[in-house]
Amino acid sequence: MEATRRELDASTLRKPPSTAISRGRASVGAILLRQLLRSIGNPPIEFELPWSGEQVASATAARGHVRIKDRRTLFGLLRNPQMNFGDAYSKGQIEIEDDLIAFMTALFAIFSSPGPRPLTTRIAEWMRVRRRNSLAGSRDNIHKHYDIGNDFYSLWLGETMAYTCAYYRTPQATLDEAQTAKMEHVCRKLRLSAADTVIEAGCGWGSLALHMVRRYGAKVRAFNISKEQIEFARRRARDEGLDGRVEFIEDDYRNISGSCTAFVSIGMLEHVGRGHYPEVGRVAQRAMVAEGRGLIHSIGRNQPAPLDAWIERRIFPGAYPPSIGEMMQIFEPENLSVIDVENIRPHYARTLQDWLERYERAVDTVRAMFDEDFVRMWRLYLAGSVAAFETGTLQLFQVLFTKSGNNAIPWTREYMYPR
Amino acid sequence: MEATRRELDASTLRKPPSTAISRGRASVGAILLRQLLRSIGNPPIEFELPWSGEQVASATAARGHVRIKDRRTLFGLLRNPQMNFGDAYSKGQIEIEDDLIAFMTALFAIFSSPGPRPLTTRIAEWMRVRRRNSLAGSRDNIHKHYDIGNDFYSLWLGETMAYTCAYYRTPQATLDEAQTAKMEHVCRKLRLSAADTVIEAGCGWGSLALHMVRRYGAKVRAFNISKEQIEFARRRARDEGLDGRVEFIEDDYRNISGSCTAFVSIGMLEHVGRGHYPEVGRVAQRAMVAEGRGLIHSIGRNQPAPLDAWIERRIFPGAYPPSIGEMMQIFEPENLSVIDVENIRPHYARTLQDWLERYERAVDTVRAMFDEDFVRMWRLYLAGSVAAFETGTLQLFQVLFTKSGNNAIPWTREYMYPR
Repeated sequence: MEATRRELDASTLRKPPSTAISRGRASVGAILLRQLLRSIGNPPIEFELPWSGEQVASATAARGHVRIKDRRTLFGLLRNPQMNFGDAYSKGQIEIEDDLIAFMTALFAIFSSPGPRPLTTRIAEWMRVRRRNSLAGSRDNIHKHYDIGNDFYSLWLGETMAYTCAYYRTPQATLDEAQTAKMEHVCRKLRLSAADTVIEAGCGWGSLALHMVRRYGAKVRAFNISKEQIEFARRRARDEGLDGRVEFIEDDYRNISGSCTAFVSIGMLEHVGRGHYPEVGRVAQRAMVAEGRGLIHSIGRNQPAPLDAWIERRIFPGAYPPSIGEMMQIFEPENLSVIDVENIRPHYARTLQDWLERYERAVDTVRAMFDEDFVRMWRLYLAGSVAAFETGTLQLFQVLFTKSGNNAIPWTREYMYPR
Repeated sequence: MEATRRELDASTLRKPPSTAISRGRASVGAILLRQLLRSIGNPPIEFELPWSGEQVASATAARGHVRIKDRRTLFGLLRNPQMNFGDAYSKGQIEIEDDLIAFMTALFAIFSSPGPRPLTTRIAEWMRVRRRNSLAGSRDNIHKHYDIGNDFYSLWLGETMAYTCAYYRTPQATLDEAQTAKMEHVCRKLRLSAADTVIEAGCGWGSLALHMVRRYGAKVRAFNISKEQIEFARRRARDEGLDGRVEFIEDDYRNISGSCTAFVSIGMLEHVGRGHYPEVGRVAQRAMVAEGRGLIHSIGRNQPAPLDAWIERRIFPGAYPPSIGEMMQIFEPENLSVIDVENIRPHYARTLQDWLERYERAVDTVRAMFDEDFVRMWRLYLAGSVAAFETGTLQLFQVLFTKSGNNAIPWTREYMYPR
């Protein structure tokens, strides 16, 4: 809101207006909304304020139509747009008369180049995320997101129950095929075989661990602090008769003990928090044998910036998507050698689209399990995430690494792409 | 020498000696040398001091035998081992009775995990490298290394005259095959075609620029501040009749103008200096069109550390090999999106071995062109570099990037590995 206030202090009447208001005498709310739109770069969005009959639109052709239910919602939005947009949408106080993904993509396209933020803001954000991811804090954060019910996630994650970016070898691949291809891609990068003992940090519902045992005959110890996920994974292992070669351990990555030839972590780093990256590196360094291979897969960014405030509050408490530079705080202090970084950003936009489609097909069941607010909140999160990956606001990095000076590595990366 | 002095202050007599001296009463020089060896972790090296008849060896079985010519050389070595070892070797004041690569590998294996250095040292190093790479400083530094004669480099670089890490698709590939494969690998990563206009920052003797024109029909503008290299490259272009599609420009990367669909820089970043990385990013951002692709290929490290002092002084003034985290200062401030990082470290050990072999075959010509000191200095540099890449002291990174939100990128990396 800083920019809005600053613009209001100066007289804006002398400048030609870049947004149009439908009536001659605009209400205070409409004027402030116009200022807000201008301050964020005039997104092509039209707002309808039904209580006053006003329309506020950017001068450029509107691609999105937003109906704000009442004056209170409008002033909430003006006060803290980042937080209150999501909440108001969830409660049905904001209606979007368009394809939600297209709308969010238009918004993110404007925000995708985050400007510099004051140092104090950055420090405050860092402290907040750091504090939240103590051992107890992490357990609480993870519980909030992942323990809302295996039944809920199984409605739309597909049969693998993998809740991370899939890998579409061709754009025609289905979600299930792409999730399996992702696991294969990871196993190939790690050159997995039956001789391997794997440690997995953050195993979700166990799909990768089970794949490694089933397909490669590796021995896996998989860690997770979500009780519901661990129980689900153990049941799957027993049902498949794989429980002799896989151990699902309900514990924090910082408590990982024992050694491994392959260290893997898919979609956990987002929850670790910046201040804890060196701990992840120490854990990997301690666990990996001299010729061990490691792979970390995480949502990230082109440049450091905090997670969207609404997502962080309502969906992923304590989460932070790092830039590659920030991720290097895992590897560099330990002198670990990064041998490959792959950015598969477009695959996450596609994965989220597939999830959203399945989610919408199951929406009546979701409504019956929770309520309409939850349905809308989760829809906004999925559609917004598609937009974030589509516009490059978020990235997806897979980082392959070994110990320093390990010469038992393949000559080229052709082994990752079998004929 | 800090560590040595500290150890001498404390009485070392109470501790069992970890190095052995051949005579009962050791000379001061022998005692200090023993301390030095201990302080750097007792490398398996035996020293011979012929003027006193002493042998100083680490307790572990010696794998290297070093003959120090006189007392003056020994005290020079004790005073500043990193600088004076190289100089004394070059002047023949130190003789190594072993395979030089094996000897250097043993040394680097001990040094490969650089410990923390005081902040003041780091700042001083940074200032030094930064100051050296002003526009005028860069020209002087590059002149020192690259303008010592095209005739000299053509003795051992092979027919491509590429003076950067090659890419051995198989370990059986020859140097020339591997250099051509490197150029192909880079062009494939960039998805080069006849529709492309390329800007190359730091083009050496022009081999990549010419390859891009000859093989792909691209249009190339290639920049370099080495007068001798630019003249050589222009001659090659004329001889091949390619000068209509390639322009070799004697200018600094900071003065690059115009736009391109592909931005490439192979082996220049090492000479840029840490403080200038954001300038490289600004140049790439300014030059690349919206769907442009960029590739930067550079020597690097697992973690930040200065270049070996002797190499920096005698061979590559102003050079600095960055960690990936440091390299990100090119991309992150500009919101450029890194889509692929490949570390081909073992390929540089192999490239340097091939260069060293050719160098030794041409050593009589080198001696006639320069002198014995130069022959030995260059031999030490090449053998030491093999060891640095072999042990993981140095890495080789290829970073592929685009502008943020560019969705015109391939679905997977399979396109880099044609069947």
